[in-house]
Amino acid sequence: MTGFPPAEFSDRVRRLQSGMATTGIDALLLTTPPDVYYVTGFLTRFWESPARPWFVVVPLKGDPVAVIPSIGAHLMGRTWIDDIRTWVSPDLTDDGISLLADTLIELVPENGVFGAPVGHETHLRMPYADFRYLMVLLGEREFRDATAVMRRVREVKSESEIDRIRAVCEVADRAFDRVPEIAGADKALDQVFRDFQRMLLQEGADWVPYLAGGAGPGGYADVISPADARPWAIGDVLMLDTGAVRAGYFCDFDRNWAIGAADDASRRAYHTLYAATEAGLAAARPGATAADLYHAMQAVIGQGGGAGRLGHGLGLSLTEWPSIIPTDETVLREGMVMTLEPGLEISPGRIMVHEENIVIRAGGAELLSRRARPDLPVLE
Amino acid sequence: MTGFPPAEFSDRVRRLQSGMATTGIDALLLTTPPDVYYVTGFLTRFWESPARPWFVVVPLKGDPVAVIPSIGAHLMGRTWIDDIRTWVSPDLTDDGISLLADTLIELVPENGVFGAPVGHETHLRMPYADFRYLMVLLGEREFRDATAVMRRVREVKSESEIDRIRAVCEVADRAFDRVPEIAGADKALDQVFRDFQRMLLQEGADWVPYLAGGAGPGGYADVISPADARPWAIGDVLMLDTGAVRAGYFCDFDRNWAIGAADDASRRAYHTLYAATEAGLAAARPGATAADLYHAMQAVIGQGGGAGRLGHGLGLSLTEWPSIIPTDETVLREGMVMTLEPGLEISPGRIMVHEENIVIRAGGAELLSRRARPDLPVLE
Repeated sequence: MTGFPPAEFSDRVRRLQSGMATTGIDALLLTTPPDVYYVTGFLTRFWESPARPWFVVVPLKGDPVAVIPSIGAHLMGRTWIDDIRTWVSPDLTDDGISLLADTLIELVPENGVFGAPVGHETHLRMPYADFRYLMVLLGEREFRDATAVMRRVREVKSESEIDRIRAVCEVADRAFDRVPEIAGADKALDQVFRDFQRMLLQEGADWVPYLAGGAGPGGYADVISPADARPWAIGDVLMLDTGAVRAGYFCDFDRNWAIGAADDASRRAYHTLYAATEAGLAAARPGATAADLYHAMQAVIGQGGGAGRLGHGLGLSLTEWPSIIPTDETVLREGMVMTLEPGLEISPGRIMVHEENIVIRAGGAELLSRRARPDLPVLE
Repeated sequence: MTGFPPAEFSDRVRRLQSGMATTGIDALLLTTPPDVYYVTGFLTRFWESPARPWFVVVPLKGDPVAVIPSIGAHLMGRTWIDDIRTWVSPDLTDDGISLLADTLIELVPENGVFGAPVGHETHLRMPYADFRYLMVLLGEREFRDATAVMRRVREVKSESEIDRIRAVCEVADRAFDRVPEIAGADKALDQVFRDFQRMLLQEGADWVPYLAGGAGPGGYADVISPADARPWAIGDVLMLDTGAVRAGYFCDFDRNWAIGAADDASRRAYHTLYAATEAGLAAARPGATAADLYHAMQAVIGQGGGAGRLGHGLGLSLTEWPSIIPTDETVLREGMVMTLEPGLEISPGRIMVHEENIVIRAGGAELLSRRARPDLPVLE
């Protein structure tokens, strides 16, 4: 069902178990869509409903155990997971917690340790009150943060994963090529947002969880606002930034255009960011740190740069560890998929951001997105 | 920016503060997209990135305080919120926690109480380790579950909210009308899923966070699987179930079709579920309980019914409290928006599900989705 080669999931679990052994964790509790998909292949948009929690437990030895609402039993039964334990959810008094506790008690010795990712860029997708009650049920067993265990494994993508990210990058490349069909001086951002999502689906995206962007005179004001219906003017700079999904994997990159004509400041900013990305591409090789990438790009951007991060990991989530910031000393390894995302302020309150997707190879960066054009394209 | 009347947000906050006063909570911490949007009007798809936490604190008196990453300051500045406190995120050593603690210490007396929704159908969208550290920083202040405070307010929609839900239901109605353009015996589900999302966007959806469905001989196997590429056969039953969003609000309903021809069992199941929905519509009035709705529909469905829930609240999330299950004694109030979602098993492993969206009025249920056709439609 998942389309992955048979060894994909067992290899992931073996790598997780190796990290668990090093960290002294007897069982790893996972609750979020990317973590659950990563070890099981359970792919559904049903996560959009906050009503039900879903649990997967990775033991130190043996295969993962799914502890899930019965509504998911059929779909989980189509994955490689054999041990599937279900309850009828929602249960207003015990929404899977005693079943989960029984499972953990079975897999964790009385003086043992269970873990879950509870550090940076994580959350527990279950009621906090239920997690506290779970801890009570587990008695003397120790709880330990397992963020590093999960992160070190998920950060390095298999070739099958890289193929999927490349495929969805190609979907976005084709949709970006077609932006002249939908954007021009007579358009507004809200309609372009709808049309661009339609084109992503036409080009092969399964769904489009993320589309941001902006448009404004000589740059845009931020990169997270929803679209508005304000008509554009000649000289506006348009940016579209998409996180489309195909087969469970994200792309995350953007493109910029000038509407009708480009002013000098916008063209210069574009050239600076293009050069900053080139510097990032040159610096992105195994052994360099995320901070090294930051400094390589920031050296090109210079004073116009903000305090933001200049890229991040990418894969099962729109953004993953590490962060390209001065304080992130994560060492880059072969197979890590990342974005390079330099930005600068063109004038007070007007910014521009570039973004590309890459994979770290032995010899350096391999682009997964098709490189942006070297000059700011103009939409007639 | 939000398009809501000026009093919308202050009224929401006043209702929350009334519940806080009753519960003895001095400050309410909110961390999730629907809760933050509900009190501030801060609408963005940037939540898709798990990198950064976002906090809003509702004090017992006065206006909410936003404690957010600086990347969101511009967008939050366009809402009605004046007190916006920012930090540069991601910060690997203190990702907003000391700033949040300072804010809560300012708003909660030393022997006071702070709360957050941590019960059924909630989660804290922040690292668990950070929340534990926050509790340490807050010293003797007591923490209390505020699920009921948030839920009782969010459950009852204003007329402005009902208008938005009706508008997105109309978007889905129009897209469902056009399904014959994209579905037929020569199609497969994965392409229909892409095409249907495209039509939802064409008809006015801002984005499509949820599309599920199924297709199979005499019913489908489950309602949460992603689409596959298997070609259909005459007699297959197709179901599409969408949670589209417009202006921040969801619809959530489905429609069923027979491909080419309908068999007797499918037609009978359709009639049973249509009648069950009619029974739910008749029972849905202020003073009845969610459990009453369950029993009204289950009495029509009879033995073929499963143990699932037969509907739920709806609004800023695809699913909200309450649940239409036998154990949910929530009393229905005017302004509650809900789904009626009866399902049954046609044959072993083959199910059918109907769904409509309603608002509870003084005189009974008002449909927000256009009522499904009384007979199983056939796609030629």
